[in-house]
Amino acid sequence: MSLVVVGSVGVDTITTPFGRAEAVPGGSAVYFSLASSLFTEVRLVANVGNDFPEEPWSCLRERGVDLEGLQRFSDRPTFRWSGSYEGDMSEARTDLCELNVLVEPFAIPPAYTGTPYVFLANTDPRSQLAALETLGGEPFVFADTMNFWLTDEHRPALLALLNRIDGLICNDQEIRELTAERNLIAAARAALSLGPQMVVVKKGEHGSLLITADGEFGLPAFPTTTVVDPTGAGDSFAGGFLGSLAASPDRSPDAVRLALAYGTVTASVTVESFSIDGLAAADRELLEDRLAVFRNFTRF
Amino acid sequence: MSLVVVGSVGVDTITTPFGRAEAVPGGSAVYFSLASSLFTEVRLVANVGNDFPEEPWSCLRERGVDLEGLQRFSDRPTFRWSGSYEGDMSEARTDLCELNVLVEPFAIPPAYTGTPYVFLANTDPRSQLAALETLGGEPFVFADTMNFWLTDEHRPALLALLNRIDGLICNDQEIRELTAERNLIAAARAALSLGPQMVVVKKGEHGSLLITADGEFGLPAFPTTTVVDPTGAGDSFAGGFLGSLAASPDRSPDAVRLALAYGTVTASVTVESFSIDGLAAADRELLEDRLAVFRNFTRF
Repeated sequence: MSLVVVGSVGVDTITTPFGRAEAVPGGSAVYFSLASSLFTEVRLVANVGNDFPEEPWSCLRERGVDLEGLQRFSDRPTFRWSGSYEGDMSEARTDLCELNVLVEPFAIPPAYTGTPYVFLANTDPRSQLAALETLGGEPFVFADTMNFWLTDEHRPALLALLNRIDGLICNDQEIRELTAERNLIAAARAALSLGPQMVVVKKGEHGSLLITADGEFGLPAFPTTTVVDPTGAGDSFAGGFLGSLAASPDRSPDAVRLALAYGTVTASVTVESFSIDGLAAADRELLEDRLAVFRNFTRF
Repeated sequence: MSLVVVGSVGVDTITTPFGRAEAVPGGSAVYFSLASSLFTEVRLVANVGNDFPEEPWSCLRERGVDLEGLQRFSDRPTFRWSGSYEGDMSEARTDLCELNVLVEPFAIPPAYTGTPYVFLANTDPRSQLAALETLGGEPFVFADTMNFWLTDEHRPALLALLNRIDGLICNDQEIRELTAERNLIAAARAALSLGPQMVVVKKGEHGSLLITADGEFGLPAFPTTTVVDPTGAGDSFAGGFLGSLAASPDRSPDAVRLALAYGTVTASVTVESFSIDGLAAADRELLEDRLAVFRNFTRF
């Protein structure tokens, strides 16, 4: 079934212990679409300026991604982010962040109305709610968020969003901050009481956690030895996860678990190259091969 | 098959966000013996002073642990450690550390000679090597170590030890420091080249990793919501792991994976109570119940 992603398109400059990539394609909607389009039909909603390379769009077009929701601004630059990673690369340091076209409202095409699966990438929860409103219907909605929206100023909007979505995906520090619970399992359970039926906690090199009313499920990360650039790992993970889930009508606990494993292997492809290079070159066969390796990695 | 543990007996004072436990039983050999004796016949080597409660010994005697290697000093106090945990309790802060009887050489009974499985808990690698020498035979040896022994002063002794053991168990920071590799999988692989055939990396709430020449195996932690006191979790993990492995002659990759899962559930029992309370009250049935929960937690 089709899946719409509402997120960002960005021009990134990334420095890691393995090198530097200047003015490369990035943004949550780009990573998410490249990942989820390996599984299902994807529709993209994002704003882009006058300085984004054409290349990723041809790649996405070849994957069948619907770009009608891509709003182009010819008079302003794209969202720009510069970040660097050090040591175990578990956290990015933001060196520069220019919102540019990111502050403009999204332009959601009427043809997207009633799309059965929706992913709201991290942004102002008010924009996430507005997008959901415009999309209409009764979609299955997953949303990402981050620390910035957990302050007193933004929290009411975030809580309103949580009340409207089926699944929340965020990282371990964010779920702790959202719920004021130290223990991760307890924090994820507490987040369930805020609205969503599913909570996915991303833990980077330590894997992920899924909590639903049915119980808990935990996975380590894919055992890759070549983490070159973690940028986009979380959105690739979400794309593999929700793409897999949207690909079939099965939303049973087993299907959700398998989707999380697909998210894991998809993210592993992203982190092994700078920017979207790994993901753009990936195909479904690569993911199936990695899934087999991952099954063996976790089997006991 | 029987298993000898060479380690410490301690009197701990522990402060966590959940409370404070004053002058309670601790020490690597105590946690390890309580854990491994749920699986196999255990022989203990450690030094104790004149201020350690009798209670844990009756518990260990009931479990059949051989205490002939417990050297009692009537004129000096036991090793004392005070530590505190904050926030997510992933690391202990040492508030006080009095070595006392810990500086004395071990007294290894001649009856322990040729014990087929040996666990060398964290201590000076010279003492670990000396214990191994005295024990003789050709045992299957696992050793724990920590950052303190990775300095220039102690590293040569540690490297000599690594050359003599079958398995190394340590935490994620330690394996990174030992091998100067950032990536955990790469670090564990690099450690293999220093001697051991197996490397187990403990990651606390993030689970564990096993690397052998055959490949990699990863497990999340047991999904407990009540982490009250992490003290002894690592030694309980090692005890469940090596106890399970020593319990049968099967040392196949599958047996080693199952042993790691037993280590995981054993550690989960320890962290849910202060000091050795959880582990002392545990039985094999509890571990089997948790193993079933853990299998379901990781299944996909």
